[in-house]
Amino acid sequence: MLKHLTMSMSSTAAEFPTIAFVGRHTDPRVAESMLTLAAHLTNRGRRVIVDSEVDLPFTCAVDRKAEAEFAKVADLIIAVGGDGTMLRAARIASGTTRPLLGVNRGRLGFLTDVSPGEMRDRLDDVLNGRYERGRRTLLEAQLLKADGSSVSALALNDVVLQKGDTGRMIDFETWVDQKYVNTHGGDGIIAATATGSTAYALSCGGPIIHPDLDALVLTPICPHTLSDRPIVVPGSCRIELRLVKNPEAQPQVTCDGFRLGTLEMEDRLLVQSSPLRLHLIHPPGHDYYKILRSKLHWGRGGHQRPADEE
Amino acid sequence: MLKHLTMSMSSTAAEFPTIAFVGRHTDPRVAESMLTLAAHLTNRGRRVIVDSEVDLPFTCAVDRKAEAEFAKVADLIIAVGGDGTMLRAARIASGTTRPLLGVNRGRLGFLTDVSPGEMRDRLDDVLNGRYERGRRTLLEAQLLKADGSSVSALALNDVVLQKGDTGRMIDFETWVDQKYVNTHGGDGIIAATATGSTAYALSCGGPIIHPDLDALVLTPICPHTLSDRPIVVPGSCRIELRLVKNPEAQPQVTCDGFRLGTLEMEDRLLVQSSPLRLHLIHPPGHDYYKILRSKLHWGRGGHQRPADEE
Amino acid sequence: MLKHLTMSMSSTAAEFPTIAFVGRHTDPRVAESMLTLAAHLTNRGRRVIVDSEVDLPFTCAVDRKAEAEFAKVADLIIAVGGDGTMLRAARIASGTTRPLLGVNRGRLGFLTDVSPGEMRDRLDDVLNGRYERGRRTLLEAQLLKADGSSVSALALNDVVLQKGDTGRMIDFETWVDQKYVNTHGGDGIIAATATGSTAYALSCGGPIIHPDLDALVLTPICPHTLSDRPIVVPGSCRIELRLVKNPEAQPQVTCDGFRLGTLEMEDRLLVQSSPLRLHLIHPPGHDYYKILRSKLHWGRGGHQRPADEE
Amino acid sequence: MLKHLTMSMSSTAAEFPTIAFVGRHTDPRVAESMLTLAAHLTNRGRRVIVDSEVDLPFTCAVDRKAEAEFAKVADLIIAVGGDGTMLRAARIASGTTRPLLGVNRGRLGFLTDVSPGEMRDRLDDVLNGRYERGRRTLLEAQLLKADGSSVSALALNDVVLQKGDTGRMIDFETWVDQKYVNTHGGDGIIAATATGSTAYALSCGGPIIHPDLDALVLTPICPHTLSDRPIVVPGSCRIELRLVKNPEAQPQVTCDGFRLGTLEMEDRLLVQSSPLRLHLIHPPGHDYYKILRSKLHWGRGGHQRPADEE
Repeated sequence: MLKHLTMSMSSTAAEFPTIAFVGRHTDPRVAESMLTLAAHLTNRGRRVIVDSEVDLPFTCAVDRKAEAEFAKVADLIIAVGGDGTMLRAARIASGTTRPLLGVNRGRLGFLTDVSPGEMRDRLDDVLNGRYERGRRTLLEAQLLKADGSSVSALALNDVVLQKGDTGRMIDFETWVDQKYVNTHGGDGIIAATATGSTAYALSCGGPIIHPDLDALVLTPICPHTLSDRPIVVPGSCRIELRLVKNPEAQPQVTCDGFRLGTLEMEDRLLVQSSPLRLHLIHPPGHDYYKILRSKLHWGRGGHQRPADEE
Repeated sequence: MLKHLTMSMSSTAAEFPTIAFVGRHTDPRVAESMLTLAAHLTNRGRRVIVDSEVDLPFTCAVDRKAEAEFAKVADLIIAVGGDGTMLRAARIASGTTRPLLGVNRGRLGFLTDVSPGEMRDRLDDVLNGRYERGRRTLLEAQLLKADGSSVSALALNDVVLQKGDTGRMIDFETWVDQKYVNTHGGDGIIAATATGSTAYALSCGGPIIHPDLDALVLTPICPHTLSDRPIVVPGSCRIELRLVKNPEAQPQVTCDGFRLGTLEMEDRLLVQSSPLRLHLIHPPGHDYYKILRSKLHWGRGGHQRPADEE
Repeated sequence: MLKHLTMSMSSTAAEFPTIAFVGRHTDPRVAESMLTLAAHLTNRGRRVIVDSEVDLPFTCAVDRKAEAEFAKVADLIIAVGGDGTMLRAARIASGTTRPLLGVNRGRLGFLTDVSPGEMRDRLDDVLNGRYERGRRTLLEAQLLKADGSSVSALALNDVVLQKGDTGRMIDFETWVDQKYVNTHGGDGIIAATATGSTAYALSCGGPIIHPDLDALVLTPICPHTLSDRPIVVPGSCRIELRLVKNPEAQPQVTCDGFRLGTLEMEDRLLVQSSPLRLHLIHPPGHDYYKILRSKLHWGRGGHQRPADEE
Repeated sequence: MLKHLTMSMSSTAAEFPTIAFVGRHTDPRVAESMLTLAAHLTNRGRRVIVDSEVDLPFTCAVDRKAEAEFAKVADLIIAVGGDGTMLRAARIASGTTRPLLGVNRGRLGFLTDVSPGEMRDRLDDVLNGRYERGRRTLLEAQLLKADGSSVSALALNDVVLQKGDTGRMIDFETWVDQKYVNTHGGDGIIAATATGSTAYALSCGGPIIHPDLDALVLTPICPHTLSDRPIVVPGSCRIELRLVKNPEAQPQVTCDGFRLGTLEMEDRLLVQSSPLRLHLIHPPGHDYYKILRSKLHWGRGGHQRPADEE
């Protein structure tokens, strides 16, 4: 069994008595899954909570709460949608150990591994205690401003430092555990978790990192020096980024795509693993490599080398 | 209309009275297409020729000739199979202007753009003069040995210099039009045509080159220096490669995957466009970009960036 | 001799009687070269023009004009600085056939191939008619807004469509000569000339393109689909880009790094070669591959494979 | 302090009383360093051992033994040369905890981090107990033949499966911890340690992996499917590779560049971390990132983007 998963077969009281839904309910596919799931779960004796704004024609009783309250009141949060919805759910759950389960809209996601066609059966598995619990690293980004102020945020995928609208390249230094690593010129850099290694970092030439490995990867974005390659470091490392010139480039810092602030001269951006972990619930049959194969279209051929194909 | 295609609408005597088939007839899908096509073409009054070794149960009269004779006796050569079969047909036709037409086995190829389901209709188009004629560059490789002997061959895709079985890196120089370009260390280098740019060179990081562009691309294979990148040069350039050390590495030279010889110290490998061109016949509707999209799985999504997908 | 260069050996009237300087004169190395060159050229009987703002302690008579006037009054424009200064000079000369010559600040540039230590000798060569004239493609970008308005600009290196500050991926279509090529998701795309192939496009995985080749290269920036690779097309192609969704991403269009505008839904961005060419003057000994080797640190080793190095 | 290093400050009996030299003594730079070191170490009261074949004009007493005996008789092995010499020394030491120290020939190596100019001072540090001890993962490759026989070997850098001389692509499956990962077509695959991540794997697009991270990286060589990307997995993983077709391709297995055998149909190649570790001795001041910067020419500029350089 994989290290990042622990199988649970609890036979005690009902698992997950209160379940909250997160999802873009204006998407008809999301709405349909939410309606179906709500009916199914209330049938199974669970209390279902949705955001106060959700105005779908539920055929069963559901409670309404502000999303920000979900982590306090729900025993399980179900994200219905794509991996972006899962990132939003992760922000809601962050700072707690509330587990998340992802239901996709018909296409497998890296984090949303239950498909609509099988969601009722898979939820029954989970309600009956047949599931694996995965823990994913969260990054904590702290932007320490030169004036002494600071802002911070958590990220499940990545913390990105990237040039602003000006189109100008940025120049910055990377330090790992207070050792100087390199001075980079280019569009920016991505500090990603294993979870984030298959997101933006992959587009920028980074490797895939198995979620069992406690590691971070620093991937330069369109680096000016062609030998400026991704570096994988232990998950315990503390990364620091500093701008070295061209402050007019106005480099932006984002956490999972959400803006944290601007890195200016004399500011420091610290990135390290949070002691918090995100807890994921996977029904039986979860297979990381199968998701990779599906998402990356492996085995479908790619381009062909003629000499080998005759 | 694209430069590399010229539309023909001849209304004179029957087009292509004699048509030869090339293909791996032991493959059941190839055999089936050959049988169907032979019946169809003899119905249309054409004479069909197959290789002497082909022992399929034709329901019509077919002539048998050695493949090596096809270019002399046939007005059109149909390659049935993958792009590898097309490369073999190109070797049969090379040195002539006999046109080739490619029928695939159900999956679009870069050079075999007629699918089995539509092959009868598309052949009727061609027999009625509705087709485009494309001309593709052929490379001529000459391996000049230190002892004064030489061997040469044509290639539709690429001429490859690559380390031998020893697993040792090779070190070699590239010269273009007698100007020194670089000294490379690595697994080797690929000199590819536009046609070959989507074959092996693409796996090694080379760009896609549109067949209308008269250009060659030099793509290093796993180069030891990370800034040793593909270079695209005019199609008129004369490329020369020389080994500079480690002769024990026994680097091999291949043309479209067929072995030409070993490059040893003091030998020279010359690569340039041949004055010969390969003539391809495309039925109406041929679309280079559509083939690219199909072969490279464009538009099927690839991996998703979560933040954009919610 | 290379196609993009034509050797001139004129023996008639004085070559280049009036010469203008472009450069960031607040950089001490630029200032020093300007002072030395001005004295040298006036000694050789040439009239020297500098921008009205330049307040250096010239020891000879120099004329002052607004930079915008240079192309009208000067027979030769000397850019002193890096390739960025050459881009600025190119904007001043664009629309004319005024030739440019580039003097670097001690480090070879792709376009500034005369070094300070040899600049007097090389200028004497040029004044005596010993030089090659190179012509470089200029791109013309036209941003056609949905409201019928439009803006346009020339670019020597590249026209770039890129996501804005929002950090959101953009989705757009590429069309070449009115044929649909692909729908891309990612950070954007670069349409580069051969000159620009060694600038930003190289950082994004594009190939090097020899300036003799009349070609453009479309290089996706951090594409979401890993098989979305650079395509090299004939220089005569007309490229069109259109946004397909997520208008809130506010994609920016820049020409050689200068902002042209924002591509919104229903807008169209057209890119094609301008009938104008940039004229470069190269003293004898200009060697494109030597510049490549210097700029890309070829032959300095890169990383070593141990087994081959013992 | 880094996890992979432990500082030793032993004050007991003389450290390393017997020291053996490994190196290509026919290289004059290696010979000179060996002569200097032998005199220096015997002056410090150490016994020096060289291979029986070494016939250099030592000015001090040295003992001669077959290299294969070194691990039994020496307390420290000094590798003089490049990283390839270090790989050879690693083979001599493998299966023991004899530590290695690497002296380069004037250019920093990833594993040979003492330079000739400072080697006497650095050795004095080491003899006085001032050093760090690093432990590096060794891979164990086992080639299990279909007939029940098997061969195995250790590797410090990498185990490589690669196409043979035939030039034909190979098709093979990867399994990790008995889970199916992917079916690959291409030139082969590299299973590398963190140490090997900066060797051949880096040329093939793999990431840099910090030696503190207990991880392996699987890097496809020129893969036919462009989304077939490097995967980093925990160091405890057990990797299995199997050929799936085209046995005529005769894929070769090598360990650190030394041939282990041919992978044929029904054979299995197993790769996993060995319980053995290689022990490295680093004098004070060892800095992994400094070596990276030096070997990869970071900070020397790479190519320039003109717009940012003016």
